Amino acid sequence: MTPPLGFRFSAVSAGIRKDGRIDLALAMADEPAVAAGVFTRNLVRAAPVEVAARRVAAGTARAVLVNAGCANACTGAAGEEATLASTAAVARALGVPADSVLPASTGVIGALLPADKIAAQAPALVGALSVEGWDAFSRAILTTDRGPKVARATLPGGASVLGVAKGAGMIHPDLGPPQATMLAFLFTDARVEGAVLQGVLGLAVADTFNAASVDGDTSTNDTVIALASGKSGASPTQAELVAAFTQVSAELARAMVADGEGASHVAEIVVTGLPDDDAARVVARTVATSLLVKTALFGNDANWGRLLAAAGRAGIRFDPRRARISIDDVEIVKGGVAVGAEAEGRAAAILAGPTYTIGIELGDGPGRARYLTSDLGHSYVDVNAGYRS
Amino acid sequence: MTPPLGFRFSAVSAGIRKDGRIDLALAMADEPAVAAGVFTRNLVRAAPVEVAARRVAAGTARAVLVNAGCANACTGAAGEEATLASTAAVARALGVPADSVLPASTGVIGALLPADKIAAQAPALVGALSVEGWDAFSRAILTTDRGPKVARATLPGGASVLGVAKGAGMIHPDLGPPQATMLAFLFTDARVEGAVLQGVLGLAVADTFNAASVDGDTSTNDTVIALASGKSGASPTQAELVAAFTQVSAELARAMVADGEGASHVAEIVVTGLPDDDAARVVARTVATSLLVKTALFGNDANWGRLLAAAGRAGIRFDPRRARISIDDVEIVKGGVAVGAEAEGRAAAILAGPTYTIGIELGDGPGRARYLTSDLGHSYVDVNAGYRS
Repeated sequence: MTPPLGFRFSAVSAGIRKDGRIDLALAMADEPAVAAGVFTRNLVRAAPVEVAARRVAAGTARAVLVNAGCANACTGAAGEEATLASTAAVARALGVPADSVLPASTGVIGALLPADKIAAQAPALVGALSVEGWDAFSRAILTTDRGPKVARATLPGGASVLGVAKGAGMIHPDLGPPQATMLAFLFTDARVEGAVLQGVLGLAVADTFNAASVDGDTSTNDTVIALASGKSGASPTQAELVAAFTQVSAELARAMVADGEGASHVAEIVVTGLPDDDAARVVARTVATSLLVKTALFGNDANWGRLLAAAGRAGIRFDPRRARISIDDVEIVKGGVAVGAEAEGRAAAILAGPTYTIGIELGDGPGRARYLTSDLGHSYVDVNAGYRS
Repeated sequence: MTPPLGFRFSAVSAGIRKDGRIDLALAMADEPAVAAGVFTRNLVRAAPVEVAARRVAAGTARAVLVNAGCANACTGAAGEEATLASTAAVARALGVPADSVLPASTGVIGALLPADKIAAQAPALVGALSVEGWDAFSRAILTTDRGPKVARATLPGGASVLGVAKGAGMIHPDLGPPQATMLAFLFTDARVEGAVLQGVLGLAVADTFNAASVDGDTSTNDTVIALASGKSGASPTQAELVAAFTQVSAELARAMVADGEGASHVAEIVVTGLPDDDAARVVARTVATSLLVKTALFGNDANWGRLLAAAGRAGIRFDPRRARISIDDVEIVKGGVAVGAEAEGRAAAILAGPTYTIGIELGDGPGRARYLTSDLGHSYVDVNAGYRS
């Protein structure tokens, strides 16, 4: 696979992760690239988020510097200094201005970023840059992920979009401009202005990253950054850009939920029939984050009572006597009551599969929303009861 | 223990639970008792909730009829008929009006209440009524509970309050007048008017049942009913009544959280320093229901980063740089950053114990709230991935 023109990538081990795996990744644009970003709306934002949000506002950037193993969140002034020092060291090795390097971090909250380890590896990191380095980049940013997450879309005129993401837990992104620990980086060689790129990114995340949940916990470090090199010479329309960015973001969001810590199923919750999309989204999110729903999915149980009970506590008015629920094409609730044991048996067989859609129709209004969620089982507990140790 | 004067209790097996344990409980007031109730604010309300809410509005009642093994929720018109028929059968056996019997149900959602089984056992249930029957009553209403939950308070003048509750999962009560699957029944022999009893109950639940969570899922069947016989002849003040009802409700709420499915710890989250109590409550609830917080508690991990991250996504403004966090009397975060490894080690030792307080100070405002929560481990997954089978 050839990445979009104008970008090079690399990764090294800087000894930030305890296990010695590669944990420091760099993506560089050969010339200043148009930059856009959306960042966590958690009030508690890590130092790299604060720094990247400030720098992306300049409209262009030269590089993205990402580390795993340390979130550098809740680390105060020392944390900000560490982020500034590490990006400065890499900028010097690259020969670019310090504020053209956008930082992103993921890992344990509360631990201070070891800027000295990053500075020591800066020359090696820059020396390893290559067009083919996207693969190493995609692996160095992982934490509890089972594997890398890469998606690609082509644009009319020969341009393309490459998306690279990480994330398996603390996944409930709430991304807003101008400000996920999901991290995603979208590279394109399309020609696009900064304001348009920011708008395209905002639209692309709304129904993808922002409609996906593993555990309902929004991170202090969630970051999506888009860089456009323009090197293809192609100038796609805004609609084409939105379609391509949304396709790549949707693939990455689904890959994150599928990799949800301990997850074996991906469920797409589709809520319809409410007065407006916002109401539908509130219900879809409430169902998608219900522990009782997620443990039922782990058990392959067509437990529609939990689906309806979760919908009922969402704070949105509907008539439960009109509720219809289906698992893919099998209707299990009609008129608010069970269709029967035979239907539930067929639904349970679908629920044993890796992915399915749960349709919840709550009236005849035009409001509609979808939310991706995973089942929740023992491995989630294992991963998260012992994460810091 | 002698229960409040004027009440008798009984329980039998009606074959509603598959395991044959006692599953049908009756509490009877010797004469019409002043009645008050608060019921789930879930939009999806079970038939017994609808019926009990209507009947409690009359201001007096003679009996409470409770079954385990079947929630009779999402069962449509047939469900309502089953609730009416079962309370009518017990009323006939008692020789009291049908609408003086308040129903409550807990168990699987979607299964229709077997009214015929209840009717068949009505004579035996009434025949078994005794002053000492409160113990059987407290056991018959259990589902996934590890044991019965009973609390008692005495009032000036010789009156007393007896509280009996069930609940271990689907626990996140949101109780409002005049409408929790927690069930709680409070009996008193104090003399009290209906409007006062309703007011006292409302105040008692606000900081107890409504500030407790096992899994964040509000049930379709949550019910708290209070009956006052007046038989002690004592007329406590409202303040005395509120104190006694709150004490009993707090004990029962703590017992439910301690019995939270798979739980081994009870954490009291205390948020202070925000502008008002409502803001503090939103933060406390968000922290108390965070999966990452609850799995860290399962792991005895003083993972304050997850505590702060959860507070930060609650939608309430505060300055993270002023945050202080303590586990009982051990401060682990000050000025938004870690106090150090030694403090965290001492905190971890406290977190290994059965109960502790997590203090989160977010400023110097007067707003304050508390929330009870449990840790979340493997047994929760076991109980809820296989509950219907």
